[in-house]
Amino acid sequence: MELTTTSSTSTTTTIPRVLKGFRDALPCAEIARERLIAKIKKTFSLYGYAPIDTPCLEYEEILLSKSGGETEKQIYAFTDNGGRRIALRFDLTVPFARFVAEHVHKEIELPFKRYHIGKVWRGEKSQAGRYREFYQCDIDEVGSTSASSDAEIINAIASALLAIGVDNFKVHISHRALLQDLTSKLGYKDKGADILRILDKMPKIGKEAVHEQLLGLSVSEDDVNDFILFASFKQDASVLKDISNITSSFKKGINESAIQRLCDIYSLLNENIKPHIVLDFSITRGLDYYTGFVFETFITGSENTGSISSGGRYDDLTSHFTKEKISGVGGSIGLDRLLSIISASGQQNMGTADVYVVSKDGSVPDSKLIQCLRGNEIRTDVAFESVKNNKAYRYAELNLIPFILFVSESGYYLKNIATREEEKVESQSDMIKKIKSQLVNNEV
Amino acid sequence: MELTTTSSTSTTTTIPRVLKGFRDALPCAEIARERLIAKIKKTFSLYGYAPIDTPCLEYEEILLSKSGGETEKQIYAFTDNGGRRIALRFDLTVPFARFVAEHVHKEIELPFKRYHIGKVWRGEKSQAGRYREFYQCDIDEVGSTSASSDAEIINAIASALLAIGVDNFKVHISHRALLQDLTSKLGYKDKGADILRILDKMPKIGKEAVHEQLLGLSVSEDDVNDFILFASFKQDASVLKDISNITSSFKKGINESAIQRLCDIYSLLNENIKPHIVLDFSITRGLDYYTGFVFETFITGSENTGSISSGGRYDDLTSHFTKEKISGVGGSIGLDRLLSIISASGQQNMGTADVYVVSKDGSVPDSKLIQCLRGNEIRTDVAFESVKNNKAYRYAELNLIPFILFVSESGYYLKNIATREEEKVESQSDMIKKIKSQLVNNEV
Repeated sequence: MELTTTSSTSTTTTIPRVLKGFRDALPCAEIARERLIAKIKKTFSLYGYAPIDTPCLEYEEILLSKSGGETEKQIYAFTDNGGRRIALRFDLTVPFARFVAEHVHKEIELPFKRYHIGKVWRGEKSQAGRYREFYQCDIDEVGSTSASSDAEIINAIASALLAIGVDNFKVHISHRALLQDLTSKLGYKDKGADILRILDKMPKIGKEAVHEQLLGLSVSEDDVNDFILFASFKQDASVLKDISNITSSFKKGINESAIQRLCDIYSLLNENIKPHIVLDFSITRGLDYYTGFVFETFITGSENTGSISSGGRYDDLTSHFTKEKISGVGGSIGLDRLLSIISASGQQNMGTADVYVVSKDGSVPDSKLIQCLRGNEIRTDVAFESVKNNKAYRYAELNLIPFILFVSESGYYLKNIATREEEKVESQSDMIKKIKSQLVNNEV
Repeated sequence: MELTTTSSTSTTTTIPRVLKGFRDALPCAEIARERLIAKIKKTFSLYGYAPIDTPCLEYEEILLSKSGGETEKQIYAFTDNGGRRIALRFDLTVPFARFVAEHVHKEIELPFKRYHIGKVWRGEKSQAGRYREFYQCDIDEVGSTSASSDAEIINAIASALLAIGVDNFKVHISHRALLQDLTSKLGYKDKGADILRILDKMPKIGKEAVHEQLLGLSVSEDDVNDFILFASFKQDASVLKDISNITSSFKKGINESAIQRLCDIYSLLNENIKPHIVLDFSITRGLDYYTGFVFETFITGSENTGSISSGGRYDDLTSHFTKEKISGVGGSIGLDRLLSIISASGQQNMGTADVYVVSKDGSVPDSKLIQCLRGNEIRTDVAFESVKNNKAYRYAELNLIPFILFVSESGYYLKNIATREEEKVESQSDMIKKIKSQLVNNEV
């Protein structure tokens, strides 16, 4: 019978559909996301960061404590049955600030290192590729001011990217104090935010447009050139081995303590991460939030599609909840963007099972065989009812299952779905070896 | 400075707190939950079930399509900015029904095996141990009617329990048609639901109370005795090796096809699962939902604290969304209850890291050493700023980190936090061996 999606008889049927901007995850997509998340978690754990969780619903006043009108328009907020104004979290940063302020010096001590991977909700106008429910993946250390803490965030994130098989990336680093100082020195302190915003767009809109827009802010021609010269500075981060490499490039001077901090961070990076670092003063991060070193991460050749991970050092995370000043450093990974990169590369495609066991005569396959496969860590799906060959192939293809094991009185036949080759296997150990040898590495 | 939780000066501070009935997961608690979930997922995957995900928000009419007024009172529902009535899911069953109806014969084929672990929300009156946000963990196969599918649900769930180290459990199985038939045969078809509800309480309220309540329904004394005799039947499931073992116990007759189904299911269970099965006709499952075999799982000796996993076979999952009749079998695991059992047993306690590296002279510990530890899968936290011994101990204890590795010019000293013993270690390989030998097995 076909799906009925309207009520055509006396029985009422509701149309089965998700809300606009929301989506189901079908099995293969969910497996890919879970594998990605598991590898990131494992890396973060090795670096000594621990997971936390916070409620998806919080008091509206808590979630809106840091934000302007833009957030208010996007947040899913409502009044609960008890008359409280509550809302769904729209990021993991505000809940983290609340979490730290609530638990510090009680259940947790500083420094505190955590990661948090979870869903957030924003009622944005839906556009292609923009969802109203999506994952965020944040990693932070609060209560430490050292350059080592900064370096560890980059080490952990870059190592996570390598662990999931992404190696063609560059982490572009800079320091917020550099542009801030330049702005003050040239006498534009009150226009600092506007200048930052314009320079931040330079990679997208180009130098000429930036030139024009800065002139429009009544910045003098000379100073515009200085700003553009500054924001154009981009070099392999190995220049950070010697601070004079950079200071000599800026004859009018540059904030040396900020450069020194970047040199310190660079020296503390893992050797295998250093080649992935670029010193890039166009990185300013739009958000007011950051006060120290900042970074954005791009896939080489796809810089225009945007950053896959970004972050930096900030002061006073918990200012809305406590007078104690708690600063920190953190970053986040764009899971959805990473997933599409990985899925495009094909490396991560993994079916719902490793083998599909089908009995040729329609009987239930021997349970000892099934248990032996599973005992050998082979994900084993079984056809319990009689299945024709064509239907079995379709099932395996739809679920990206690489093998069908046909069981009959005359023996076992292993069918490779990709090649359509079928071969008789003589023993269970032979079968296990053959299946395992062709599996995507599914260790985490 | 101390935490300020009220606004005492001109700076406004918001009290950092979660909503009543909600809770944060601190690192060690979250690690325990993630380990539990990872082991369950791994077991389900080996059994050929695949994960899916659905949105946390759905159309209110979809979530309420199956339910009566009780759900309506508990659901978090509201109107979004687009004027749609939407709600947070209160279970994973209704979204699964919507998912199957929406995708069947398009992105998915029958039979369809899935598991789904996710948060759900209910605005219940908060009581001790009842939360408004909690996890559900469901496993189902739809589109197959075989006894093998029923047996696989038990195999998968019981194997997951064994995988997480819980082995003192019994799965009590029965069949809904047994009581249904008895009720009809004795002439109480119209009172079936009430009789079921009363017998379902027998383990809690006792036979005498059931006797009284059934008499109150105008059931005759003789028939009350028959109902109680029936619901008192409880035997090791090995009696299912021969159907006559059961039929002979009921001289007035019993639904033989239902018993035969239970015999078939039993014969299809893994040999290591069979000893965990009890045939128990008092298991009726309160919900109307179930139509075939049903089960509930209890920790031996803690039967009164309730079931840790339950489920059964049902007809027509998708009735509110499509005319196609799709039946299936499924079960769910009570994650919170399991977590408290495991946490009480102490077996699962795991800190935020395996070792905490502290430099005795306040310098940053050698990065090669740190990378060597992490490369050997040791979760390594590092003190980047100078830390006094007492503070280091407190940090390790708070975070359940079993070892501190003190690094100084004279060598490496490994401190076991539990025993307070400190020993000099001569080489990195020695250090790795010592740390690994004492770790909780953290493989998943």
